[in-house]
Amino acid sequence: MKYRVLIDANDEKGLVHKVSSVFFNYDLNILSNSEFVDKESNKFFMRSVVDGDVDKNELSNAIAEVLPKNSSVKVIEPKKKNIIIMATKELHALGDILVRHEAGELEANILGVVSNYDALEPFVSKFNIPYITVSHEGLERAEHETKIIEAINSFEDVDYIVLAKYMRILTPRFVEAFEDKIINIHHSFLPAFIGANPYKQAYDRGVKIIGATAHFVNNNLDEGPIIAQDTIHVNHAHSWRDMQKNGRDVEKVVLSRALKLALEDRIFIYANRTVIF
Amino acid sequence: MKYRVLIDANDEKGLVHKVSSVFFNYDLNILSNSEFVDKESNKFFMRSVVDGDVDKNELSNAIAEVLPKNSSVKVIEPKKKNIIIMATKELHALGDILVRHEAGELEANILGVVSNYDALEPFVSKFNIPYITVSHEGLERAEHETKIIEAINSFEDVDYIVLAKYMRILTPRFVEAFEDKIINIHHSFLPAFIGANPYKQAYDRGVKIIGATAHFVNNNLDEGPIIAQDTIHVNHAHSWRDMQKNGRDVEKVVLSRALKLALEDRIFIYANRTVIF
Amino acid sequence: MKYRVLIDANDEKGLVHKVSSVFFNYDLNILSNSEFVDKESNKFFMRSVVDGDVDKNELSNAIAEVLPKNSSVKVIEPKKKNIIIMATKELHALGDILVRHEAGELEANILGVVSNYDALEPFVSKFNIPYITVSHEGLERAEHETKIIEAINSFEDVDYIVLAKYMRILTPRFVEAFEDKIINIHHSFLPAFIGANPYKQAYDRGVKIIGATAHFVNNNLDEGPIIAQDTIHVNHAHSWRDMQKNGRDVEKVVLSRALKLALEDRIFIYANRTVIF
Amino acid sequence: MKYRVLIDANDEKGLVHKVSSVFFNYDLNILSNSEFVDKESNKFFMRSVVDGDVDKNELSNAIAEVLPKNSSVKVIEPKKKNIIIMATKELHALGDILVRHEAGELEANILGVVSNYDALEPFVSKFNIPYITVSHEGLERAEHETKIIEAINSFEDVDYIVLAKYMRILTPRFVEAFEDKIINIHHSFLPAFIGANPYKQAYDRGVKIIGATAHFVNNNLDEGPIIAQDTIHVNHAHSWRDMQKNGRDVEKVVLSRALKLALEDRIFIYANRTVIF
Repeated sequence: MKYRVLIDANDEKGLVHKVSSVFFNYDLNILSNSEFVDKESNKFFMRSVVDGDVDKNELSNAIAEVLPKNSSVKVIEPKKKNIIIMATKELHALGDILVRHEAGELEANILGVVSNYDALEPFVSKFNIPYITVSHEGLERAEHETKIIEAINSFEDVDYIVLAKYMRILTPRFVEAFEDKIINIHHSFLPAFIGANPYKQAYDRGVKIIGATAHFVNNNLDEGPIIAQDTIHVNHAHSWRDMQKNGRDVEKVVLSRALKLALEDRIFIYANRTVIF
Repeated sequence: MKYRVLIDANDEKGLVHKVSSVFFNYDLNILSNSEFVDKESNKFFMRSVVDGDVDKNELSNAIAEVLPKNSSVKVIEPKKKNIIIMATKELHALGDILVRHEAGELEANILGVVSNYDALEPFVSKFNIPYITVSHEGLERAEHETKIIEAINSFEDVDYIVLAKYMRILTPRFVEAFEDKIINIHHSFLPAFIGANPYKQAYDRGVKIIGATAHFVNNNLDEGPIIAQDTIHVNHAHSWRDMQKNGRDVEKVVLSRALKLALEDRIFIYANRTVIF
Repeated sequence: MKYRVLIDANDEKGLVHKVSSVFFNYDLNILSNSEFVDKESNKFFMRSVVDGDVDKNELSNAIAEVLPKNSSVKVIEPKKKNIIIMATKELHALGDILVRHEAGELEANILGVVSNYDALEPFVSKFNIPYITVSHEGLERAEHETKIIEAINSFEDVDYIVLAKYMRILTPRFVEAFEDKIINIHHSFLPAFIGANPYKQAYDRGVKIIGATAHFVNNNLDEGPIIAQDTIHVNHAHSWRDMQKNGRDVEKVVLSRALKLALEDRIFIYANRTVIF
Repeated sequence: MKYRVLIDANDEKGLVHKVSSVFFNYDLNILSNSEFVDKESNKFFMRSVVDGDVDKNELSNAIAEVLPKNSSVKVIEPKKKNIIIMATKELHALGDILVRHEAGELEANILGVVSNYDALEPFVSKFNIPYITVSHEGLERAEHETKIIEAINSFEDVDYIVLAKYMRILTPRFVEAFEDKIINIHHSFLPAFIGANPYKQAYDRGVKIIGATAHFVNNNLDEGPIIAQDTIHVNHAHSWRDMQKNGRDVEKVVLSRALKLALEDRIFIYANRTVIF
């Protein structure tokens, strides 16, 4: 049996030794191993992939026993996670995820797509993935969000909600309901150009580089822990619409990269930052 | 004779034709030619390098005659420009410029280095470049700046002032005195992390990319027209001091790149943006 | 009427003037204009986008008249070009093109997909695009290629053939039949790792960067004029299969970028190189 | 006391456990820890930085005892390493190292510079670093190299020889005399453009990207284990001399990066590859 072991603990001398002792005692093979200690906050992070014959809960308990109190241990059996994608009208980021899914690149089941428009339904339906349109027209934000939550809850065991250019602001109620589960792509190099139409903002500021940021949404829309970022060069000849077009290539790659990291249990969230192994 | 011709005009039909007619009539060879029209503001920019036997002023007047009123024409004979470098205590950006100068990479005479500390004097004196320390200790900002301006004005025909990690804020008085002549390197990807200690800010925000921005200083410190930017990837294992160390490599490369563009008369400033050929 | 004007001529004094005179005489508005002179070979390249009321052939003839003999002038009315995609078993590059097409990002009609396997048919058929399987099993290379050419010729007015990871070597006969029309993505940074399994070669050499190259196929498979290249960093922890997985993201982006350049008539082919405006 | 512990062993179950037990028994604090297992060859690599009160040799022996036979253990006290720089006529790479040294960025003493020309002596002498010119004029390659080796051997305890654009081919005799100690910067993205004038080769091939490669020289000049690589974009407007100029910025950054990794004992050499922590 192969397991991913994720440990998040207060640091103290001997943690690697103690955890590796447990692996050794259970005769487990360590396939890969990464650790990081944040000196400033005295926090220890470890991700190991181990292989061997042991019960998942037994292993988890054995590790917990050698760790300081208040530590977190997760022993995860690698399997496909369930994701829901939210989008508005733009196809590129959603399309990239669907093609990767089709190509077997993602450890994921796509349960469905939820959108405030029906614009992407013809595309999504090609892939036999349920598409739920929840129009915001004529609805208060709270009402609309209630319906969105209902749509999401119509699926079971949702591991991640991927905002693939979902262009509506989410309320704290929504965000709290899916803590550490919402991954957003923001179409700028955060924290530059927070808010609406970042490409227009970037153009007006005369930047020579634009970027995209994938992050968890745990609070305000553009302020959660960053998972991945990338940038491309632009020049004076690019109008803001050109920047937007070119930016889409970065957006889709960064979002898909972040999603993969999440699906492979490589991300620790901590102090509004991420540790990524 | 080789000339760089820089034209900045309101756009109208036939400008390329009219300007190239002048070149043709003077039997000039066009070595390179770039144009850009900003549709939004109806502005036309052109930079040509021409070769031939013509008087500089005559050429300039002939071009001005075919352009709309209020156009700007510069006919520049390529030669070394005079620069002053300002720095505080960090060596990397200043050192990079001095080594490039030594290697003959820059079309520049370095008139002198002005600093608020004497920390870099031993290094600069190796290169037989005057070093003027203007300590800010015990001085009001205005008093200090008056002395800095005096130091700069002790040199003649200054074309550019390069802020190679000069860590003091400049007042509008200073900036206005050297309009379009001050090039600064800001140690972040502007407009993210404006202000003090951007690496600490970047670390706290948990970014996965850091950058540097070279820009003209025409107003507030971090808000002038951007000339060049670049970025590098960082990760959770980088403390803010690591980011600072790695960031220096980007800072020095971006500043030197911007300086070269300025020395080669490749930059138009316009609406707080730059057009770069 | 909007036209793209592409000129390829032996350089001589006054070409810009002469061509812009023609535009001026026809009262055309120049929307964008790029020139390049290759000093070494004395060649002049120009691409203009002009807007105005003129007959295409008349404009073409008027320009040809002012150019040296043996020059090439193309006046192109922007419209969707017809492309055929060839693939083998990998989905990522083909999928990226199909999604971009669906999103309206490409100035192209996709006439069909031709493959030596039926593996990608289920995917392609979702998009109502004809899929022709031409198995190479039991066939000599020449026989197989004859059938491939028949499949391609079953479509009309083919502008470009895009090899989206088509993993069979093409013979000179094929290549000559579609000169300057075949765009290939090679899964390495050419000219490194020419030939089979470049990721394995890259791994064996211990490189720290991998790349992809989009190029025209005018002769030997990996030796035509390069259109676009890009690279990503890898490290010791990447097996060659990891490199292959990560490399796919570069491959698809580079191929799509090259295809766009071709569709927008931005590429001149010359001396086994490309000039790209 | 702080130590860097470098382990290179055949992999077997429990190695992390066994080594961390030693650290634990000596009451050492693990400041950072990286491991990598190369499955294909069954090799285990580990680099730990530990802090505590223990004798260096005692620690080394204690670790060796728990490892399989034929393992390599190095316990290194961090201190400045002694380097010699070899150059020919180009200043940029050498200059970058000297400025970094001056800025305190390098854990190194620069013992001297050895060159086949005196061109760089005026620059190097500014820094009070010995400069030895060993002209190759009128000498057979073997004779010249004997003199170079004598010049190098006039310094004591040389840890690394840095070829900062030393443009002469080294013989196997030289290379064997300084195994795993010679770091070279090759002015191309290896293995593309091996041999003379890679920028000319790159230009002729019409590439859209150029690069630089820092590597150990253990055999043929361009074939040793790669430490670091980077690339930049170029276009049709770049002559090969422009590529050369722009390439210098990459060369110097990549060489300095590789040198730092070596000075910080972060590199394992293995099967003509490097593992870098």
